[in-house]
Amino acid sequence: MIDLFIKIRNNNLFEAFVVSVILISALSIGFRTFDMEMQVYLVYLNYLDYFITLFFLVEILIRIIAERNILRFFKQGWNVFDFSVVVISLIPIDNSETVLLARLIRIFRLMRLISFIPQFRILIEALIQSIPRVGYVLLFMFVIFYIYAAIGSLLFSEIDPLRWGNIALAMLTLFQTATLEGWPDLLYAAFEVYPWSWLFFVSFIIINSFIFMNMIIGVIIDVISRSNDDEAPENIKLLEEINSKLDQLNKKL
Amino acid sequence: MIDLFIKIRNNNLFEAFVVSVILISALSIGFRTFDMEMQVYLVYLNYLDYFITLFFLVEILIRIIAERNILRFFKQGWNVFDFSVVVISLIPIDNSETVLLARLIRIFRLMRLISFIPQFRILIEALIQSIPRVGYVLLFMFVIFYIYAAIGSLLFSEIDPLRWGNIALAMLTLFQTATLEGWPDLLYAAFEVYPWSWLFFVSFIIINSFIFMNMIIGVIIDVISRSNDDEAPENIKLLEEINSKLDQLNKKL
Amino acid sequence: MIDLFIKIRNNNLFEAFVVSVILISALSIGFRTFDMEMQVYLVYLNYLDYFITLFFLVEILIRIIAERNILRFFKQGWNVFDFSVVVISLIPIDNSETVLLARLIRIFRLMRLISFIPQFRILIEALIQSIPRVGYVLLFMFVIFYIYAAIGSLLFSEIDPLRWGNIALAMLTLFQTATLEGWPDLLYAAFEVYPWSWLFFVSFIIINSFIFMNMIIGVIIDVISRSNDDEAPENIKLLEEINSKLDQLNKKL
Amino acid sequence: MIDLFIKIRNNNLFEAFVVSVILISALSIGFRTFDMEMQVYLVYLNYLDYFITLFFLVEILIRIIAERNILRFFKQGWNVFDFSVVVISLIPIDNSETVLLARLIRIFRLMRLISFIPQFRILIEALIQSIPRVGYVLLFMFVIFYIYAAIGSLLFSEIDPLRWGNIALAMLTLFQTATLEGWPDLLYAAFEVYPWSWLFFVSFIIINSFIFMNMIIGVIIDVISRSNDDEAPENIKLLEEINSKLDQLNKKL
Repeated sequence: MIDLFIKIRNNNLFEAFVVSVILISALSIGFRTFDMEMQVYLVYLNYLDYFITLFFLVEILIRIIAERNILRFFKQGWNVFDFSVVVISLIPIDNSETVLLARLIRIFRLMRLISFIPQFRILIEALIQSIPRVGYVLLFMFVIFYIYAAIGSLLFSEIDPLRWGNIALAMLTLFQTATLEGWPDLLYAAFEVYPWSWLFFVSFIIINSFIFMNMIIGVIIDVISRSNDDEAPENIKLLEEINSKLDQLNKKL
Repeated sequence: MIDLFIKIRNNNLFEAFVVSVILISALSIGFRTFDMEMQVYLVYLNYLDYFITLFFLVEILIRIIAERNILRFFKQGWNVFDFSVVVISLIPIDNSETVLLARLIRIFRLMRLISFIPQFRILIEALIQSIPRVGYVLLFMFVIFYIYAAIGSLLFSEIDPLRWGNIALAMLTLFQTATLEGWPDLLYAAFEVYPWSWLFFVSFIIINSFIFMNMIIGVIIDVISRSNDDEAPENIKLLEEINSKLDQLNKKL
Repeated sequence: MIDLFIKIRNNNLFEAFVVSVILISALSIGFRTFDMEMQVYLVYLNYLDYFITLFFLVEILIRIIAERNILRFFKQGWNVFDFSVVVISLIPIDNSETVLLARLIRIFRLMRLISFIPQFRILIEALIQSIPRVGYVLLFMFVIFYIYAAIGSLLFSEIDPLRWGNIALAMLTLFQTATLEGWPDLLYAAFEVYPWSWLFFVSFIIINSFIFMNMIIGVIIDVISRSNDDEAPENIKLLEEINSKLDQLNKKL
Repeated sequence: MIDLFIKIRNNNLFEAFVVSVILISALSIGFRTFDMEMQVYLVYLNYLDYFITLFFLVEILIRIIAERNILRFFKQGWNVFDFSVVVISLIPIDNSETVLLARLIRIFRLMRLISFIPQFRILIEALIQSIPRVGYVLLFMFVIFYIYAAIGSLLFSEIDPLRWGNIALAMLTLFQTATLEGWPDLLYAAFEVYPWSWLFFVSFIIINSFIFMNMIIGVIIDVISRSNDDEAPENIKLLEEINSKLDQLNKKL
């Protein structure tokens, strides 16, 4: 019985079918956004939706059973991820009231696009692995943002309350400044009241890009030196082997 | 007879002449855009145009015959490219109606600027070779864009239908956000209705730059480790040769 | 007696308490910016403030005494930094008049967030160490900015006195141009008067990005070659050892 | 007699004096831009200007004579550069008419700031040396710009004649698009007439950043592999020496 499930799970056709259901699910979400012209198809799209929800449930059950052991299934992070996506999309939501949430959950199902394709999993895992390397730098940047936001909301909150009204708004405005988007407008609004406010913006931008540049260079150096370390031992090993053989020769003579 | 064509093809003067015709073709297209002052020269430009079309046809025929074998000629991708450009520019178009298309085809002929210069061919080939390296990352980015566009058009389509009206418009707007151009305007339009919309924009920008950073670093590491691999074998080979010679010595003694 | 202070300083609980006081200090500064709703808590926040000021004083005294020697304490740059932060936050300021300065000093105390966490110290030290590597490039960029600002304020000061009125304003405007933010507006304002003004902007942007690109590449190359130099000697050493052993063998035979 | 000039040229005090004159020259140009408040000092600034012009002439003459041979002096590119700067600043200009040109020449003299400081010379030389490495890429980018500008001025010249009126304006607009500044405005102006115009902008931006990314990576790889090549021979040489010694040993036995 379980062998049948394993066979289904490993079957190429079944895999292709899962991928097509995911893709159809993605396309149906896209179609819904062109709401004007597509009203007539909405009924069919809803039926399709029920089918996709059901199919995803069946598919995850097949994979759980095929694994033989429910604990072993949940040991893999990606399985937990898939299971949560399916469970969340099963939550019954009263369509009239929280229609927005229901639709968000439907979009959330698209995350299976990422978890199903192995190359995407590798990408995500690589991204997650690179976080600790940049973790302290991001925390440090957060502190810099916090200090600048405190100064910014202290100085400019009366000039432009929408942008600098409190420390949360100020941090958002500083994020905008860090993307270099529209910062001269912020500067010239503050410039008339505090002629020294250019120091605030210019120092923030320079410090930010300096930290960012050092982070990128740091990561590059880190990865290169790690890959060099992987290579070097082979050379060294051979050299040491040669060295010891010479010692043997020297002893024989 | 064919030898004559080969001689023409390989003649430096002929090559220089082809380059000048391509350059004249490029300049004539440029001149046409200054339409006010240049009306008088338009008749001459049209004659020039007929000559260029004809000349490109003759040139490609010379190269086909000089190759001796029409199949061998089409085995090279660049020849297929040149041939298509010439054939497309020969399509007779009724000047009064689809004048725009006729002019686009004339500009299309400028692609020969790229295919004729060997260094440009190498550049293009290098660019094409680097696509698979970043292929899955681009596909992954597309999925991220699609998911964010679905959320965006769900939340903001009524606030700004021109930018978020459907999933296609939303993807274009997200591309704009990815270039960091004018995204604060999009944010502040949505901010009043959904106070949490900053999460949408900030997370999108951070995820995007994180993926982009990882892609660039990945490519650099990839190319460096490949060039290291090309170098290493030489060392290893010599080391192994030395090693085996020592073994011989050890046996002799 | 001093041993007690050393014990306190090295105590994990004490360290955790210092971190929480710093964090509370940061949060209290953040809370103050939401001034509307939080008026009632202001009195408590002021008491908190006195406590934090006092606590930081006590903490630094404990560390000075624990070091046994006041000179040795001030030999470490970070101690000098902490001491200055504490001393500056002790300056009594008449709350009614220079309230802005008093608040700035309170924010300034957040710098302890950076100096207390060892990983942040390392980051800062790495940033400072990387300055000399880019120092001359930054000075060179300053000269380029100065020359362009002189030309810009000469040509455009009458067109847009707010942006190009004098060399200081012009340098700020050029910094804005270097961040590529809103430069087309500057160009099209100048374009009508001086049709060649595009040369000014385009050349400035290209030169700037060229210098910036070379600086980044320079730093990467510099760091990589330095890390390679650290590795190479090990190999060379072994090779030279092998070489000399072979010489010995040759002599023996 | 010539020895005296050589002594003057190599004198540290003289060098310091030249540097201060250059710096004073730079500051005087900066002061002039604050024209309102500084009117009174203008007379002194003009005297200073005559002195600086004269001093630069004397300084270059000292260096020419000290070189003993006028031809040897002009063999160094930087001497030619200095000489041209001095000669151009000597051109007598009628102050009333072409006052703009006279002032531009005065700013031009600031170029000596670059040529006098050895580290800046090295920087400039490094920048110039890196041009051939990116030369063909820049030419290729120019061709891409030209083709897109031809298409852009064909399609959009009637929508926005100021931006796309002719191929020269279109290239400037595309440069703006390449800096990612304000391109959505250009897109949405064209979007209503040609719904497919997003393809024009999106493809241009992607192709551009792709070429740019490849260029930067290419330069990094190029420099790294060159520095590796400098190091490798040392290793290989030693290995080959060891190898030949082993051959000798093998023959002896």
